[in-house]
Amino acid sequence: MEGHPEVTVLRLGHRPGRDERMTTHVALTARALGADRAVLEPAASGSADTVRDITDRFGGPFAVEVADAPKGRIRSWDGVVAHLTMYGLPVQEVMGEVRAAHFGSEAGSEGGAVDDGDPADDGEESGPEAAGGSPLLVVVGGGKVPFEVYDRAGFNVAVTNQPHSEVAALAVFLDRLFEGRELDRQFEGGDRRVIPEETGKRVEDLE
Amino acid sequence: MEGHPEVTVLRLGHRPGRDERMTTHVALTARALGADRAVLEPAASGSADTVRDITDRFGGPFAVEVADAPKGRIRSWDGVVAHLTMYGLPVQEVMGEVRAAHFGSEAGSEGGAVDDGDPADDGEESGPEAAGGSPLLVVVGGGKVPFEVYDRAGFNVAVTNQPHSEVAALAVFLDRLFEGRELDRQFEGGDRRVIPEETGKRVEDLE
Repeated sequence: MEGHPEVTVLRLGHRPGRDERMTTHVALTARALGADRAVLEPAASGSADTVRDITDRFGGPFAVEVADAPKGRIRSWDGVVAHLTMYGLPVQEVMGEVRAAHFGSEAGSEGGAVDDGDPADDGEESGPEAAGGSPLLVVVGGGKVPFEVYDRAGFNVAVTNQPHSEVAALAVFLDRLFEGRELDRQFEGGDRRVIPEETGKRVEDLE
Repeated sequence: MEGHPEVTVLRLGHRPGRDERMTTHVALTARALGADRAVLEPAASGSADTVRDITDRFGGPFAVEVADAPKGRIRSWDGVVAHLTMYGLPVQEVMGEVRAAHFGSEAGSEGGAVDDGDPADDGEESGPEAAGGSPLLVVVGGGKVPFEVYDRAGFNVAVTNQPHSEVAALAVFLDRLFEGRELDRQFEGGDRRVIPEETGKRVEDLE
């Protein structure tokens, strides 16, 4: 998000046909919940098109890349790598460290918990600490993930150690990473905007 | 979860073929993140089988039902109905009220919403029903959701007003509903358990 080191979501192991919608949902979740960029495998170029289309219509900034060698991207990443896996360490235990590494040490020492009720401690994070933070690569696996990904990741993070959904894991991870601030993000551009309604649907035409 | 009024996740509008994995992920996310029960449409019986199999292997309690008339279930629900939709009110604004209605007034006054800066406005909204709390029905739409669902829902809740994923929306909703306590839930039964690891995979055989 604006004012922070970049967050990239890398979708690994896309299986054509079978994973089309899951990959699209991973990338749309990345966009909606505060990440800056999604990197998909060449086999997922259809998903990439869908997400670019949504960004055109609903605004950005959000970048979608199709990369030939996503594992190479992990190896050469200059920053923090967090791999989401049900075999990893509990998100509620490691998020403080992830935040410290990504946002800079002051952010991490806050505690990192999602239900921090005090908005007053948010405002000052993006200044000096942004200088000390590092770009974050969030790796979201599809099929079987090679051991080298576990090995290279600074953090193997589990959103529960139960089998569920890479989309759900990514959503909880990002909501806790940004401590809910991503929900107030304003998108720029696009040709429409949804206006929150108690009942029904309201869409504002921006053109 | 144990010690709370029941939370049921109802998946509406399953399209055979197209929605198989999404519906499975909705129900697995419900199980992993603290809900007690998933209700699926008859067309999604394959997803129901998958989720029952996961519960057999990784533990419960978690119930999966296949229901003929899911909309009837919404109409006749004796408790709180929350419908997740990108057109609804921001989750960070309404979660305090949802929690008060579901858990009872004491839960609401705990603090409620994840980043609600003003816990004081949560406690008194739920009225008499708050005394003991009420079962919560979380409705997750697939395709186009009929207007009567918006109308019947006590809360139309948006996890951002951006298009992304019903799985992601459900995950953030449940994590905020339980304020992270679902991540520490212990499952019973099953024949295996994943042991959190910094690197690699470790599965304990319980048989």
